[in-house]
Amino acid sequence: MKLDYDKLGGLVPAIVQDQGTGQVLMMAFMNPEAFQETLGSGLAVFYSRSRKRLWRKGEQSGHRLLVREIKVDCDADAVLLRVEAQGGGTCHEGYRSCFFRRLDPDGRPEVVEPPTFDPAAVYGAAEEEDR
Amino acid sequence: MKLDYDKLGGLVPAIVQDQGTGQVLMMAFMNPEAFQETLGSGLAVFYSRSRKRLWRKGEQSGHRLLVREIKVDCDADAVLLRVEAQGGGTCHEGYRSCFFRRLDPDGRPEVVEPPTFDPAAVYGAAEEEDR
Repeated sequence: MKLDYDKLGGLVPAIVQDQGTGQVLMMAFMNPEAFQETLGSGLAVFYSRSRKRLWRKGEQSGHRLLVREIKVDCDADAVLLRVEAQGGGTCHEGYRSCFFRRLDPDGRPEVVEPPTFDPAAVYGAAEEEDR
Repeated sequence: MKLDYDKLGGLVPAIVQDQGTGQVLMMAFMNPEAFQETLGSGLAVFYSRSRKRLWRKGEQSGHRLLVREIKVDCDADAVLLRVEAQGGGTCHEGYRSCFFRRLDPDGRPEVVEPPTFDPAAVYGAAEEEDR
């Protein structure tokens, strides 16, 4: 299937959802190479915009995302990965989901989920997007 | 809360999830004005990249998204709207979710959800992003 990478300069957004619980875990971006590798390997691979290279999620931490289903939206410009998430959590800050903060009615963030792992123990000195 | 709009040239991706079922319904983008209006009104408002103006989801169709919770990711560069979706569906093609296609193991799309409304009846001749 041909995705539309043109709207974001060569990338498509990829939403990651836990297949079991439905929790949205993170979102990142894919270029064609990341998408093809994800399809072929069954592991989520993104494109790091800051480092300008493929980002094999969990390569350092072991917190890999096993891709159980890939869905594509109506305009073929976004994908939804339904995954089984390995390890203690997906977020490099030590939470199951990157969306661990909720905005209160005044628009102020409040943390609404418990941390699930110690990022220092898991990542050591790894750079953020190698996590 | 200050979101990071810089990574996408003034926009943040907004994932829309049904609060009741957990289904991911769509994704779109917000500029600061869309985000503020969403916060203030409790209805999802996006920024249409093609039309270069605010897109008040459901203004034409009545398929509004009542925002029950807004979550923000670790880097403050993506938001997750947990919503109650009004009307027959969110997708302009007549489905509850825009992610109505799954990729088979060869990467070919297959429709895996039933249509939930007739887009011609709901939208008439409206342009796609007025829907």
